[in-house]
Amino acid sequence: MTPFTAPVRDVRFVLEELLEHDSLSLPGFEESSPELVEAVLEEAARLAGEVWAPLNASGDRQGCQRRDDGGVAVPDGFAEAYRAYAEGGWNGIGVAEALGGQGLPEVVASAVQEMLHGANMALGLCPMLTAGAIEALAHHGSAAQRARYLAPLVEGRWTGTMNLTEPQAGSDLSRVRTRAVPEGDHYRLSGQKIYITWGEHDCAENILHLVLARTPDAPEGNRGISLFLVPKFLVNDDGSLGERNDVTCAALEHKLGIHGSPTCTLSFGEKGGAIGYLVGELGRGLNHMFTMMNEARHKVGIQGIGVAERACQQALAYALERVQGRRSRARGGQECAIAEHLDVKRMLLSMRSRTDALRALALTCAAQMDAARHARDAETRHAAQARVDLLIPVVKAFSTDQAVDIASLGVQVHGGMGYVEEAGAAQLLRDARIAPIYEGTNGIQALDLAGRKLTRDGGATLDSLIDEVEATARALSISEDLHYLGESLAAGAADLRLAASLVLEQSRDPELGPDAIQAYASPFLTLTGHVLCAWQMGRAALKAEAALADGSADPFYPAKLASADFALRHWLPVGRAQLAVIEAGMARLADLDPTSL
Amino acid sequence: MTPFTAPVRDVRFVLEELLEHDSLSLPGFEESSPELVEAVLEEAARLAGEVWAPLNASGDRQGCQRRDDGGVAVPDGFAEAYRAYAEGGWNGIGVAEALGGQGLPEVVASAVQEMLHGANMALGLCPMLTAGAIEALAHHGSAAQRARYLAPLVEGRWTGTMNLTEPQAGSDLSRVRTRAVPEGDHYRLSGQKIYITWGEHDCAENILHLVLARTPDAPEGNRGISLFLVPKFLVNDDGSLGERNDVTCAALEHKLGIHGSPTCTLSFGEKGGAIGYLVGELGRGLNHMFTMMNEARHKVGIQGIGVAERACQQALAYALERVQGRRSRARGGQECAIAEHLDVKRMLLSMRSRTDALRALALTCAAQMDAARHARDAETRHAAQARVDLLIPVVKAFSTDQAVDIASLGVQVHGGMGYVEEAGAAQLLRDARIAPIYEGTNGIQALDLAGRKLTRDGGATLDSLIDEVEATARALSISEDLHYLGESLAAGAADLRLAASLVLEQSRDPELGPDAIQAYASPFLTLTGHVLCAWQMGRAALKAEAALADGSADPFYPAKLASADFALRHWLPVGRAQLAVIEAGMARLADLDPTSL
Repeated sequence: MTPFTAPVRDVRFVLEELLEHDSLSLPGFEESSPELVEAVLEEAARLAGEVWAPLNASGDRQGCQRRDDGGVAVPDGFAEAYRAYAEGGWNGIGVAEALGGQGLPEVVASAVQEMLHGANMALGLCPMLTAGAIEALAHHGSAAQRARYLAPLVEGRWTGTMNLTEPQAGSDLSRVRTRAVPEGDHYRLSGQKIYITWGEHDCAENILHLVLARTPDAPEGNRGISLFLVPKFLVNDDGSLGERNDVTCAALEHKLGIHGSPTCTLSFGEKGGAIGYLVGELGRGLNHMFTMMNEARHKVGIQGIGVAERACQQALAYALERVQGRRSRARGGQECAIAEHLDVKRMLLSMRSRTDALRALALTCAAQMDAARHARDAETRHAAQARVDLLIPVVKAFSTDQAVDIASLGVQVHGGMGYVEEAGAAQLLRDARIAPIYEGTNGIQALDLAGRKLTRDGGATLDSLIDEVEATARALSISEDLHYLGESLAAGAADLRLAASLVLEQSRDPELGPDAIQAYASPFLTLTGHVLCAWQMGRAALKAEAALADGSADPFYPAKLASADFALRHWLPVGRAQLAVIEAGMARLADLDPTSL
Repeated sequence: MTPFTAPVRDVRFVLEELLEHDSLSLPGFEESSPELVEAVLEEAARLAGEVWAPLNASGDRQGCQRRDDGGVAVPDGFAEAYRAYAEGGWNGIGVAEALGGQGLPEVVASAVQEMLHGANMALGLCPMLTAGAIEALAHHGSAAQRARYLAPLVEGRWTGTMNLTEPQAGSDLSRVRTRAVPEGDHYRLSGQKIYITWGEHDCAENILHLVLARTPDAPEGNRGISLFLVPKFLVNDDGSLGERNDVTCAALEHKLGIHGSPTCTLSFGEKGGAIGYLVGELGRGLNHMFTMMNEARHKVGIQGIGVAERACQQALAYALERVQGRRSRARGGQECAIAEHLDVKRMLLSMRSRTDALRALALTCAAQMDAARHARDAETRHAAQARVDLLIPVVKAFSTDQAVDIASLGVQVHGGMGYVEEAGAAQLLRDARIAPIYEGTNGIQALDLAGRKLTRDGGATLDSLIDEVEATARALSISEDLHYLGESLAAGAADLRLAASLVLEQSRDPELGPDAIQAYASPFLTLTGHVLCAWQMGRAALKAEAALADGSADPFYPAKLASADFALRHWLPVGRAQLAVIEAGMARLADLDPTSL
């Protein structure tokens, strides 16, 4: 098992050189100096590498067990590792100081999340869900709820869950049936929720379940759904824990991966009704849930990148150590490590290049999240928010699709050893495979991008991003060494602009109505992801070239140039093919009877 | 768990309409009538669907266990299912009558293999390895060896294994260390082999291990390696079984998938040396092994297609049943199965289209195998063999890469359910993932294609195939409805021709020597696979159009047209992007220090 070294060097490159620490100059981040950020990253890397990462394989092997009393035992060491995280204050680093957090910029919090997910994705899910609960309560909870519940969540003493899915209600939450009947100052909930991540465990004193349910007279459909807070243990007025609430873990799922993360079926109200408290307004549950879902989607993208990073490291370590075959006679003919064979080197570079590109894009999105919340003037905040809205489905879906592919390539680099579980490469593939599914499948992300984010402003936000892509392409074009990259990026930008106009046009198809966009949404998202990632790597190439011109001898920069070359000239063309797909049209798709397939 | 229905309809389309039963007119196949083939396919479909398929999930869950006595217990039901196969005569359907088989064409045998692998890939591996042993003995065994060992192998009473890999010798077999010391009429073998598929089990009376080993005075490297036959039980002169030989299963691998297939570490000679018999010539072991490896590679490609087919069926069944979301208002606004959503339909069509295309290409290759062995004149045989040699690495690598992706998309169609093992979609992904690795990694296949098969005749064989692709493109171009497909295919053919010339040119790179081709080999194989698959679907579209023009009301044909449209206009463009990759060059790759990644 290869140790995991959190990618501090590349994160610093992105924060310091690509993003020029823009977030630190925003109001509210006066106390976050570059030195502080550096110290935070180093410390997070230590927690990730030394405490969380060593439990990744053992947690996968051991998995979670439901005890007869309905409790859930998570893998050995997880509770201690979680506590080290909570006691180190990591749970609150990105939470506003007003809420008891440390108020670091989202770019920094995101970078730390990536490190932790790379170290141990199954464990990383626990605080990820808590962050959603914090978000929901901070935005929609009453003053009393915030006073009672927020601090222990921010401190990590309690954890949170999101209870959306029911057997008949997955992507379509309008079908939620869980009932919430008013009773005095609270409600009584009954029903069953499935796929509840970290729905039951004993790593924390209490668990706060955020639950979508219907009140008795609520209308059908989305507008009948409200959001409720259902604590595992009721909380007394003084904050101490009271009675055990009527919510139990009925079963654990037997999953392909993330075995260390308990995925629970939760039963509410088997003994008369679980006590729950309305959060926000009646009938606005879905809206309130989507507040936190947007952030959660960004975090899932980040998670994919974390696993991809670990796959890169693991494949590289194996390829540098595994001797097989010989150099060509022209290069001496000796036996050599497989990392020297060009076909293997190509795979390693492909993994590295894509991972770095995805990271740069995800952190760029996080920087926009900082600007959307903290920028001085409203116009800047709104423009940043529009970019965040557009980028989040891309970060979520493209990063996770790529993460699966990167992890799969990591298995391939290992040869036969990759298929043997002990090597650890297969676990990364198994773990990564959930990310394109949860928090809204990647198909849902594509519809969100093409059907909502693109169309609602007629493409204006994307156009402004493409303007920046083109500016980067022009900067590359005047460089003697990088002009090929500029040509490639310019072509990608032009494709994306054309694709966006085609999708906008097709969204107005009179016959199919809004359905039409479904056929193009995923290819469009893929193209968007490719072009925006290539843009980031184009920017990275310019920075690397400048550093080398300034005399840097850091091997990081030539590697970054190779990585950028790969991203723009070997990876981007594959993405650009999606324009042809969109241009070809999908007429046959609408007419096709699926039963004939 | 969705039942598995072997794809008889599409197999018959390929054999009867695309290949026009060419193999049946070859000398030696006089007794194979279309009616016989049809009956064989129907009967194989029954075995696959009713006997093998129901054991696929239970076999995965139960896996194999090594007993204390060194024996291996395979999953419940596997021994009976294997016996049903052997007693039905299936093991010999593709084996020449002279060797005790039924002498059916390879196209038919391949189609049957696909059905069985789709039903139960883990079990399918057992006869797949036996086929390799039959091939090796038939070609290289002495008359006495053939007389003693072939019949029980062909009948399936005994099974065979291929013992190549050792811990230090995987892709590079020159590093094999297992020793074979002469002793009278036999040798004594000692050493350890790993990753031995079906290396130990009790589904058959005996197991014949074909083992690569070195004799004491053999030279270093490939030319010191010989091939030995090591029976689990020694065989007496009358064919009865004698003593247990000194070969034992030391361990089983804990693998990502194919849990029902025991992957063994075999120890030879722990008690003084396993008795083995030289097969063929001393020092020619690798050559002899490669005789059977070529066929085995085709079978691995077929295996990928079988799993892809099952993934298609499983995803479609789920998507037709799972109700989620609504039709657009334009289409009535009712709740509907997810198969009606265009994004899901796109995924289903993508899976189906690619699976059908891969099948058509693999069976086209099998038809060439028939011609290579049976055609009347030597010129035809040689030309067919050249095509087989070129196509096999493509069938192996492209089919298996695509199978992993298709199985992964199958998981995605299932949403959250896809990640839960009970649904069965995840198993297909886990099972499929080995196929790009074993029987020569797909990187090795790419080197075989680009570095050997393409270069050895200066591209002539590929050129002749591209001529046929272009002829199909022209036929499409004059059709009113299909001319778009013709344009697309013609563009793909032109790309492939250019790519081949670039790879040939780069193979003569004076500085890197033969290494240079490594950097381009995989992109080139991918492009080749795309264009040849698109060609097959172009041919399929012409046949479907003709059938519909003749008044057929079979819904198979409109579906095939949709499938062909997808293959040529949505899938081929992605493959064509590999030309840009090859054109961009890999200069940076050679210079790149992998430790900097």
